[in-house]
Amino acid sequence: MIKVGVAGYGVIGQRLADGVALQKDMELVGVADLAPTLSIRALRERGMPYPLYLVDGADATKFADLDIPVSGTFADLIGKVDVMLDSSPGGVGAKNKALYEKAGVKAVFQGGENNSVADVFFHGYANYEKGLGADYLKLTSCNTTGLIRSVDCLDRAFGVDRVAITIIRRVADPGDYHRGLTNALQMDKAPSHQAVDLMTIMPHVEATGILVHTPVTHGHIITVVAHGKNGRITRDQALGAFKAHDRIRVVRIDDGFLGNASFFRYARDLGNSRGDMYEIGLWEDSLVETGDNIMYAINIPQESVTIPESIDAVRAAMKMQHDSATATAETNKYLNLGNWKSIKGY
Amino acid sequence: MIKVGVAGYGVIGQRLADGVALQKDMELVGVADLAPTLSIRALRERGMPYPLYLVDGADATKFADLDIPVSGTFADLIGKVDVMLDSSPGGVGAKNKALYEKAGVKAVFQGGENNSVADVFFHGYANYEKGLGADYLKLTSCNTTGLIRSVDCLDRAFGVDRVAITIIRRVADPGDYHRGLTNALQMDKAPSHQAVDLMTIMPHVEATGILVHTPVTHGHIITVVAHGKNGRITRDQALGAFKAHDRIRVVRIDDGFLGNASFFRYARDLGNSRGDMYEIGLWEDSLVETGDNIMYAINIPQESVTIPESIDAVRAAMKMQHDSATATAETNKYLNLGNWKSIKGY
Amino acid sequence: MIKVGVAGYGVIGQRLADGVALQKDMELVGVADLAPTLSIRALRERGMPYPLYLVDGADATKFADLDIPVSGTFADLIGKVDVMLDSSPGGVGAKNKALYEKAGVKAVFQGGENNSVADVFFHGYANYEKGLGADYLKLTSCNTTGLIRSVDCLDRAFGVDRVAITIIRRVADPGDYHRGLTNALQMDKAPSHQAVDLMTIMPHVEATGILVHTPVTHGHIITVVAHGKNGRITRDQALGAFKAHDRIRVVRIDDGFLGNASFFRYARDLGNSRGDMYEIGLWEDSLVETGDNIMYAINIPQESVTIPESIDAVRAAMKMQHDSATATAETNKYLNLGNWKSIKGY
Amino acid sequence: MIKVGVAGYGVIGQRLADGVALQKDMELVGVADLAPTLSIRALRERGMPYPLYLVDGADATKFADLDIPVSGTFADLIGKVDVMLDSSPGGVGAKNKALYEKAGVKAVFQGGENNSVADVFFHGYANYEKGLGADYLKLTSCNTTGLIRSVDCLDRAFGVDRVAITIIRRVADPGDYHRGLTNALQMDKAPSHQAVDLMTIMPHVEATGILVHTPVTHGHIITVVAHGKNGRITRDQALGAFKAHDRIRVVRIDDGFLGNASFFRYARDLGNSRGDMYEIGLWEDSLVETGDNIMYAINIPQESVTIPESIDAVRAAMKMQHDSATATAETNKYLNLGNWKSIKGY
Repeated sequence: MIKVGVAGYGVIGQRLADGVALQKDMELVGVADLAPTLSIRALRERGMPYPLYLVDGADATKFADLDIPVSGTFADLIGKVDVMLDSSPGGVGAKNKALYEKAGVKAVFQGGENNSVADVFFHGYANYEKGLGADYLKLTSCNTTGLIRSVDCLDRAFGVDRVAITIIRRVADPGDYHRGLTNALQMDKAPSHQAVDLMTIMPHVEATGILVHTPVTHGHIITVVAHGKNGRITRDQALGAFKAHDRIRVVRIDDGFLGNASFFRYARDLGNSRGDMYEIGLWEDSLVETGDNIMYAINIPQESVTIPESIDAVRAAMKMQHDSATATAETNKYLNLGNWKSIKGY
Repeated sequence: MIKVGVAGYGVIGQRLADGVALQKDMELVGVADLAPTLSIRALRERGMPYPLYLVDGADATKFADLDIPVSGTFADLIGKVDVMLDSSPGGVGAKNKALYEKAGVKAVFQGGENNSVADVFFHGYANYEKGLGADYLKLTSCNTTGLIRSVDCLDRAFGVDRVAITIIRRVADPGDYHRGLTNALQMDKAPSHQAVDLMTIMPHVEATGILVHTPVTHGHIITVVAHGKNGRITRDQALGAFKAHDRIRVVRIDDGFLGNASFFRYARDLGNSRGDMYEIGLWEDSLVETGDNIMYAINIPQESVTIPESIDAVRAAMKMQHDSATATAETNKYLNLGNWKSIKGY
Repeated sequence: MIKVGVAGYGVIGQRLADGVALQKDMELVGVADLAPTLSIRALRERGMPYPLYLVDGADATKFADLDIPVSGTFADLIGKVDVMLDSSPGGVGAKNKALYEKAGVKAVFQGGENNSVADVFFHGYANYEKGLGADYLKLTSCNTTGLIRSVDCLDRAFGVDRVAITIIRRVADPGDYHRGLTNALQMDKAPSHQAVDLMTIMPHVEATGILVHTPVTHGHIITVVAHGKNGRITRDQALGAFKAHDRIRVVRIDDGFLGNASFFRYARDLGNSRGDMYEIGLWEDSLVETGDNIMYAINIPQESVTIPESIDAVRAAMKMQHDSATATAETNKYLNLGNWKSIKGY
Repeated sequence: MIKVGVAGYGVIGQRLADGVALQKDMELVGVADLAPTLSIRALRERGMPYPLYLVDGADATKFADLDIPVSGTFADLIGKVDVMLDSSPGGVGAKNKALYEKAGVKAVFQGGENNSVADVFFHGYANYEKGLGADYLKLTSCNTTGLIRSVDCLDRAFGVDRVAITIIRRVADPGDYHRGLTNALQMDKAPSHQAVDLMTIMPHVEATGILVHTPVTHGHIITVVAHGKNGRITRDQALGAFKAHDRIRVVRIDDGFLGNASFFRYARDLGNSRGDMYEIGLWEDSLVETGDNIMYAINIPQESVTIPESIDAVRAAMKMQHDSATATAETNKYLNLGNWKSIKGY
């Protein structure tokens, strides 16, 4: 059993903890945080399913005042794990790295950290092998993770040498108040970092794109124009490849998947924890051909989409599996991913 | 074991089914619907935890095409239950009533139906006794249900004879596309129906109010100016009464409950199914005195707030308990309501 | 002086009237409508700058009750004009056509009508010559009009044979309550009609695209991937062509044009009537090359962008000018378009 | 002619300049700002209707690079005026005050400054006489200004001794990107500062209230429960008083005023500069009686509502008129306020 800790129990950290807890070949040792946030209060009200450790600077009396049990310090947690999933606020992970190095513990950082924090910029499908045995890995961001899933899927099947993307970005998570946008679409300078990051992970692909922020909270939508390296990729070919992928859910507007909020609605109705979805959505109705390109739209559930690839990263770092296909299959099995493919009518 | 069915497996129906399934003295026999909506597809993907019956007009082949198991007709379901929770689209419940009458089955309708469909317009706390043994009950709407909880709470403790409310209404549920509002606050004509409905349930209180629609999806907020029948209700008195209530959760801005979306965030983090919350929220920071009035703001989780009172209605109709205090305590026990009161710092 | 009438004094009709009134070689005879809407009430409060005629079915007493002067019937208006700009609600224009034909009056319809209503589907730059002397013309929709401006601009300069677009569509106009969207991005089936319409106007270009509705009111944003017929179109080439266009305003994020709402803010600050803008915006920061394609993002002010091309259509129908360059120059002169090019720093 | 300057040419400053320019007994000498913002660029593109002066710290070369004519320094402007309308960013006005004192120039500050900056906290109707001859006045905020208009109106006619308000606050202005809110209603701690400020201006009234932020940009809505000092204020009485006020526009839902965005739509259609409205809106449909209270809802056009009272403040400071009735009548005459009352059907 690989022992895993989670640093930072926020939007991503909670989901990393849930995801690791579902892996039968991993043990979630505990989570670490700084203050009794709403998420920590919820953990308390749930009866502390995960042991809590306090990072440096935490005020223990605040936790005691709320009867929140504390299992030790961050150093204690580090001492008990093989690998840390670090979802601390941006910049904190880099500081934590010194502690990990000192303790000889591996770590997987999230997209908010600077690339320099890690030895390998990692994606479970596109470059798993690069992460094998690495000490410090950094995950791609939510948009990049989902985007690469779809481009890698086409690339493996048919070859892709160029993509142009338009990211229609949700601007905040449900429950955010500090980074909203009201009645405005906001532009970023092109090319978007997601396109640049894709090229780092998939250096044989030329990528560019434009990102527009929109005032919604339930999932980014990305349109992708992907150029076939070996000539036209047909609509049927692309559809077939996407439908066979365990982390891509192909949907249709006529079935009720009208937009990004439908995925959230469906995940809640499925009984998924927090209404989360690990898979990206892909609209069958969006698939069109143009020249030697295939164009399509995907939905990125920003809060949870990076969890599977983060778990893949643990597998790579700890050499639990030696290739992407085997590793992602293990992660998917425990996260119950891809089972929808067997339902008639999919 | 009281046998219960649910007609209409939409936003409310799903939650009614979940709520009934948690009651150890009730049995959820099944749910009925018309078409393979996203919610029915999710039921299928979950493995059919609730048996599905088809209402008249349903096209069985559409269900067969998706391998969705069907347990019978709506008439079959009616034949198996003691009471039906009817959350069909507005107007359909009135038609269903004829079927219930024919079969000698009781029914509890939701707020969308016309009052004339029922013998009793019902609230679990404010007029439970009126519902005792009744055949047809209609629940108050989500806003009215939550509002009455708070006004009844003050009324029992201190006496209330007049309220003036401002309803800041969320305009759509997460996943709705057909009834949105973009960058606008929309007025309804005063007095709002919620104030009028409150007077029907609590005839000794004079109520009026103004409703404004706002472009959000996570919970209505209502401000209430309640007049003490017996003189000033102090802030401390009101706070004490609210904190003791099992369906009112008192919160503070400084603890992270910044607005309506915080309740949704907290419910998701609690692991509540669908991120739902049965209790209303009440901001301690909103409580202010003015003349002989106490003023405060509450949060109404529109999708799930009526579930407890709907289950109370089953208890009343079936005479499972003979007074409000006993009945609501049973409902609350199975829904795990009010346990937060024992946590230090509440 | 060409005599022009406007049928339908709504969002578009008001702006057509304002635009025609500015043309020194046209006379706005009057506007026609059905009911005393807010726009008609505003016309009254402004002192009736445009004479009002009532269409069939209007209740004259409602206008009298509000002291709104009426100059005659729709038939009276038709009898006084050479050409009618018809911005009636979708479908009404087709009925009006019979009246125009009977009276021997030409007409220009807006994008909401079916293509079959017109002899020519028209754009002032891309196919002006097709409209010369035509009796019935239909304008492209707001998105298509703005999109074609930019594609035609590149096509004339460098040749374009293929475009793939992503339309990030504003879902309602300021003041709309009936067609909103709240916290959701909604998908349309691909290809979008705007791409299809572009191919009708510019048959030598292959076009496809995806449209996503967003909950904002101040302007659509479209990203365009345009393929050079004769090889790579460089960023500098494209920028030069766009900057020289009188209906395209090139802007930069660093100058304060952060998104679609900045154009509205700027137009209000310019003192433009209603805060309108006739020109599309184009972000210099969005221009990127990819393969033989140039990619860029434009902003479409949906309420007013079709006004210049609609006036061009009058010029074509009445043969006021015989080629696009001369005709659009006249329209632009009276609408004060393109003068920003002479300001240092543009 | 009273000579007036405007410090800070932002959202409020532009409107102050426009408002002063319309007063036939005042001369707008010029406006001052720091950087070539969008608003300054628009001033340039309009041909500099108002002379521009640069405050300390401005980089003159940036203006020269854009061919923006500069008429002098802030000190130059101060030297030319009798009174300065200071709409600098919050906190800057307090620093500017030292310059005004040194130059012996009076000043009127906006709501963003601390109360201590001024000798008098001012409202044109409620305490004009307090401002007579004062050197430094501070305007109430937009919500407080509009709220007081309505409460003062009732108070003069019938006597008011207590109000409880709910402020449904728009969170950003059109064109803002930095202070939005997405799909959330956000609470402030009670009592709201607007209620507290009302008590400062109208010390004989007890006021409290709750403020909720909403994700819209076109106008705050406030509901008011006002208690009659001398017994019940009837609906008809209140309606009569409101309809007679020159800065309150009474509207009806059935006429098309469905919400806050309707006022903006109407103001644009009226041809008002920037689509602004100086008057508050009051819904006839919202007026209801409760006990000895009258309850109603008003709409506050946040960008422009304080302009008339700011001009009143100039009149008071300069003793141009000696009582509120005469002074506000002059301001209203030049701003064309209240003329709607003569239109049949109002």
